[in-house]
Parts: sequence; C-alpha cells; structure tokens
Amino acid sequence: MPPLITLTTDFGSRDPYVASMKGVIHSICDGAQIVDLTHEIGPQDIFEGALFIAESTRWFPRGTVHCIVVDPGVGTARLPIVAHVCDQYFVCPDNGLLTFLERESLMHNVRVISNEAFMRDTTSATFHGRDIFAPAAAHLANGALFAGVGEKVQAITTLDVPDLRRDIEGIVGGIVMHVDRFGNAITNIHKSDIPDGARGSVHFSGTAVESISETYGDVHAGSACALFGSSDHLEIAVHRGSASDQFELRRGSRVEVRF
Amino acid sequence: MPPLITLTTDFGSRDPYVASMKGVIHSICDGAQIVDLTHEIGPQDIFEGALFIAESTRWFPRGTVHCIVVDPGVGTARLPIVAHVCDQYFVCPDNGLLTFLERESLMHNVRVISNEAFMRDTTSATFHGRDIFAPAAAHLANGALFAGVGEKVQAITTLDVPDLRRDIEGIVGGIVMHVDRFGNAITNIHKSDIPDGARGSVHFSGTAVESISETYGDVHAGSACALFGSSDHLEIAVHRGSASDQFELRRGSRVEVRF
Amino acid sequence: MPPLITLTTDFGSRDPYVASMKGVIHSICDGAQIVDLTHEIGPQDIFEGALFIAESTRWFPRGTVHCIVVDPGVGTARLPIVAHVCDQYFVCPDNGLLTFLERESLMHNVRVISNEAFMRDTTSATFHGRDIFAPAAAHLANGALFAGVGEKVQAITTLDVPDLRRDIEGIVGGIVMHVDRFGNAITNIHKSDIPDGARGSVHFSGTAVESISETYGDVHAGSACALFGSSDHLEIAVHRGSASDQFELRRGSRVEVRF
Repeated sequence: MPPLITLTTDFGSRDPYVASMKGVIHSICDGAQIVDLTHEIGPQDIFEGALFIAESTRWFPRGTVHCIVVDPGVGTARLPIVAHVCDQYFVCPDNGLLTFLERESLMHNVRVISNEAFMRDTTSATFHGRDIFAPAAAHLANGALFAGVGEKVQAITTLDVPDLRRDIEGIVGGIVMHVDRFGNAITNIHKSDIPDGARGSVHFSGTAVESISETYGDVHAGSACALFGSSDHLEIAVHRGSASDQFELRRGSRVEVRF
Repeated sequence: MPPLITLTTDFGSRDPYVASMKGVIHSICDGAQIVDLTHEIGPQDIFEGALFIAESTRWFPRGTVHCIVVDPGVGTARLPIVAHVCDQYFVCPDNGLLTFLERESLMHNVRVISNEAFMRDTTSATFHGRDIFAPAAAHLANGALFAGVGEKVQAITTLDVPDLRRDIEGIVGGIVMHVDRFGNAITNIHKSDIPDGARGSVHFSGTAVESISETYGDVHAGSACALFGSSDHLEIAVHRGSASDQFELRRGSRVEVRF
Repeated sequence: MPPLITLTTDFGSRDPYVASMKGVIHSICDGAQIVDLTHEIGPQDIFEGALFIAESTRWFPRGTVHCIVVDPGVGTARLPIVAHVCDQYFVCPDNGLLTFLERESLMHNVRVISNEAFMRDTTSATFHGRDIFAPAAAHLANGALFAGVGEKVQAITTLDVPDLRRDIEGIVGGIVMHVDRFGNAITNIHKSDIPDGARGSVHFSGTAVESISETYGDVHAGSACALFGSSDHLEIAVHRGSASDQFELRRGSRVEVRF
C-alpha cells in the first residue's frame, strides 16, 4: 500500500479545486490513501497554514507525503518545492508555509520541483495545486526518488515572526498566534519559556489571571483561565465560553507572563 | 484490512485537532480506514452529538469502531469509555453521548479506558481526543481485546430527554429535536407512536397541517407539510423552503399530533 | 481493490445524511474507497451541482463511480439513473445534474435504476441518497453489471443554459457561471470561443480591463484582471482581492469580450 498523502489547502470545499486534486492523485497513484487535514485555511493566509501544518503533521507516521496549497503567488516567480523533514515529505510553494517546522531539519533537504515527470503534461498558470503539487505528491507516494524532483534549494522563504520579549526581568511577553473554534487564544509562549514550569500570573487585554491552571475545569463556567494546552503553548480560555469574544483576543494580541 | 474507524467531533476543520487525531490513528494502525462522519457538531453540544451518532452509526457494518469527541468536561472527572453495542465499538467520554443508542444493549457492555496501553505515552489535560480516544480506537481496530480496555462500568451518563406527552386522549405531544440544513424540523414523535399509522393533523407554532404527507412533493412549493422522514420520525417541512425559518421552529419547539 | 466511489451532495456535514450514505456503502462494498468531492453544493442548487461535477470528475481514473445527490424532487416522479460516460459511472437523480457532461457521450448510455437488487430493502420517500443512490453506487463498485441496473433511458433532463451571444461582429457575450471562494467570477466563455486566443478587452459591471492576462500576478494587488483560468474559461479576478465583492459579480452577471 502506498504511503499516506495528506491535503491542506485554503480552497474550502464548495469549489471543484480539492476534488480535482484528488482525481489527479488517484489517476497517478493507484490505491492512494488520501487524508484531508483541512481545506479551511483562511484564503491566502500563509501564516495560518504554516502554523496548522507544523502542529498537525508531527503526529503522522514516517514516509507520509504532505501536499500543502496556500498559494497567493501562483503563476509568479515563487518556486514549487519539496522538503524532506523528519522522514516526511512536504510538497508546497516556497512562500513561508514551512516556517514553523524545525529550522535545522530544513537545511540541505529542500528541492525545487523542476522535473516535468513530476507535473501534469500541461500546467496552467493559475492552479499549481492540480498541475504541480498534487502530481508531485502522487509520484513521491508511488516511490519516485526525492533526488529526482529537481535541484537542491539553498534557502527557503520564512515568515517574519516576532521573538518573545524578555527585556524586563521576570516578564515574558508573547502574542496570540491562533484563535480556535472554541475561542481559545493560543500564544507563542511555550511551557519551556517559563522558568519554574507553570508558575506566574498572566496578563492580557487589560486584565489578568493569577495563576496558570491545569485544565479548563479548574475554574467556574464563564471564568477565564490560562493553561499550557495540548501543544504545550500557553492559551487563554474561558470555561464553557469564548476567551476570544470576552476579551477581544485576536492573532497578534499581546500576552505577558509575570513570574 | 483493519475495520473502519469513524470520527465524529465538534472540532470543525479549521483547527489542527482532527488532523492530529488522524495522524495518531495512522501511526498506531497501519492501513487504517478512517471515515469522517462530521466535525460540525455544535461546539460542546452533547445533545446534538448524541442524536447524530444514534442516527448515523446504525448504517455501518459490524466491527466498526466509532470515535466520538464532544468533550466539554475534558480534564475533569468524567470517564473515558468504550461501549460495545450491536457488535460495534463506541469510544467517547461518558457525558451522555450514548443516550440515544438502545438502552438495553448498553447494559454490561461498557468499560472505562484505564489501561495505559490504549493511550499515548503522555496525555495532556486538554486534548483527550488525540491522547486517549484516538489511540484507543486505533488499538481496537488493530485487534486489541475489548476486555483489556479497563473495568466494566455499571451505569453510564444519559441526558435528560422529555418523554412524549400522552395525557390527553387522542393527542401525542412532542418536541423538535433537530433542524437540518434544509430547515426541516425533526421531532421525537416516531411513526410507531401514532395509532393507525400516518393519520392525524399536526399542530405547531400556532398553525397546523391537516394531514400527514408521504413526501415533500405532495404539497405546492412554499407550503408546509408534515411527514415521517427517513428515520421514521415526524418532521415539519416546507416544499422548496425552510420550515424552521417560516415557523420559527427550533430545538425544543412543541409539536402535537391530533388523531 | 474496488474502484473509487466519489460523493457529491448538498447535504452539508452537520446532519447525519452523508454519514448514513457512507455506512450504507461500506456495508455493501467491503473495502470501498470513498472520496468526498463536496457536500457544500448550495441546498437544492442543481445548476451548481452540475457545474461542479463536470469540472471535477474529469480528473478521476476510468472505472470511478460518482454518486451525486442534489435532489429537490425526491419522492416525486423524477427517475433515479446511472449514466456511463467516458468509462465512468454517474449515479444520480435525472434532474439536470449531467447537463454539462459531454452531450454526445450521454446518448444511449443512461439507464433508470429500477432493479431492486440495486436498492435497500425498504426505500423511504425522502432520502433516496441513502436508499437508492448509495446502494446502486456500492453495487456497481462491487462489480455488478451496468446492464442490470434497469432499462435504457432515451433522453435525460438538461438545464436551460443560455448560449453565448455572437450577434455583433467582434463581440462575444457570456455570463458568470460561478463565483469561487476567492471571489473570482468564472464565465461560460471558453478560450476556444475567442478568435486569436487571448486578445481583446473584457467588459463587465460598467467597467473594463484592456487585455487578457496570463496570471493573477500580472496586475498589482487590488487591481482587476481577466484571464483564462484552470478550466480554460474566462474569469474576472482581483489580485489579492475579491472581484465578486468589488464589482458585484454574481451568477448570471453579463461579461463581454471585444476583439
């Protein structure tokens, strides 16, 4: 059985774009096991796509081929690439989508897709998901050699992400990276960024919580808490409510831990 | 080939939660056949999840493993369980999600998930879908024994659902349980609850229809009808329109059959 | 391994309808490979469904079975059919869903589903997706003979689609057929409809663009362009914006090419 091929796009599911990619993959790779990760990345939102794939792909087995299409620059000079990271393949445009994968792993393991054997016979200027990324992923799943994709790329495009602020003793300052469906606001402050583990007060939107909780149920329904979530990043939540709505937390909102 | 694993959650598809569960399952169960039932259960809406799985899972073959995560109490004392019903497995939190499965079948066939061999090595306090429910489902699909999951549970949590009203001769009173995408309002009145099959007038929202129809097309476009739908429950519909919008029918709205 | 079965519906994913169809298919066809194309066709929007399947199914391999349920006339006299086109099967109600498949191919290759061996034992009046279309698709995937489905149908229902206007020398007039998630407005004017390929100015919503571009990136962010998209139909786009929002382009809006 060929390895898994996952799909992550900003295409939504109302248009025929995702379906066309699936048809192309199945036409090249008989018995392909396609796994939909999401097609609901915000339209052309590379940052959201980059966060999504860093968090979700690490749970997949070795050999998985990830095909990721969030591609506002389709038809321009940005390159189509394949990265070989942690024994998985990432097929995508070189526009920052791999920013949050481990940077060291990316050194010397990225190739441009230039070999036409990895593409459809004719490639449109507006839909490389169907014409380049899906075929390349399908051929890799079929066992085509990574080295045959094209030349190595020396450096890839990465997004500009602000570092944590640590200029004041006893304070770590971060931002909200993502608000999830439940209104939880997930920050870029990792558990390992706070000395002494889970101690400290957490400040945001002109308010604060006194300590870091273990789980949502530690506070009453309707009350705010801060905790290290399932990816060990600090998040602001409201038990049975929406922290995002209640405190106007959005991507980029500032959050501080004082310890 | 391993048995089917179905997924039903309230995670939506924009966040990496469902994708992470899929990765965990494929990492444990090589060749897993995952079937998405829905990820659009209303956030933390256990009632909607319970109705959904009772209606949808009965069409699946014996041996299917259903993994259901609508889990507002994650990290609190509620137990993770597996129920063995009608030769299918239901892996979920014990919070009422199994309310509408046949109650007799549930007796003596539910176990708590306590064996760590059915979980990830480390379990977070906030995402048991990834750390407990997905791994347990994958191990069951791999052939792990149900008896090995953990101890038997004597009673499970069920939701409080109002019985039909039958206090007046010739009247059966029920409520709307679900409004579907087409605006059809589906009640808890089953075909078998009405003597004489499909005769009677149906009363709701201060209006009425004189009889029970066979199909939507029995009335003109824009007109209301009542019929026993595909699950043999009485539903209010508007031919080529929305009964929910036109008559302000919501979950809990009262409906009466007079016969 | 059985051939692919694709699903295209207007059921959305919040109700148990799609899940029930998947259960029925897996119960009939062990090892079925089900591919979700979309469940987000607008409710009862046959035109949108017809466009969607014409564009998406052509990328699939020979032998694929497409099960398509957009069925406002369920329970009325409209027939359930299977069409055999380009060595693929299309299982759907006869209500216009096949309008945009190649018309010649459809001659003499359509059968009504009348053989009860292709249906569930009991068929409801309101959900033929579960009771007729899914079982028929599953049996075909299992190898049941197309000739056994039922009698040949002499003519199928097609939607009334306006032809291009060509009454003035040097002008081709068409309409917007679909607006996609990115706000691109896709017309019924095909590349082959314009003499001389890609030359000419494009007029819509009281404005115009001077020429036809190769790709979205040919104009500045926020500017409109017209180009032949991934299916070789003329589309109006705004680079990193929404043409639909900016110019109030909807299905049916008029677009002219002057050359």
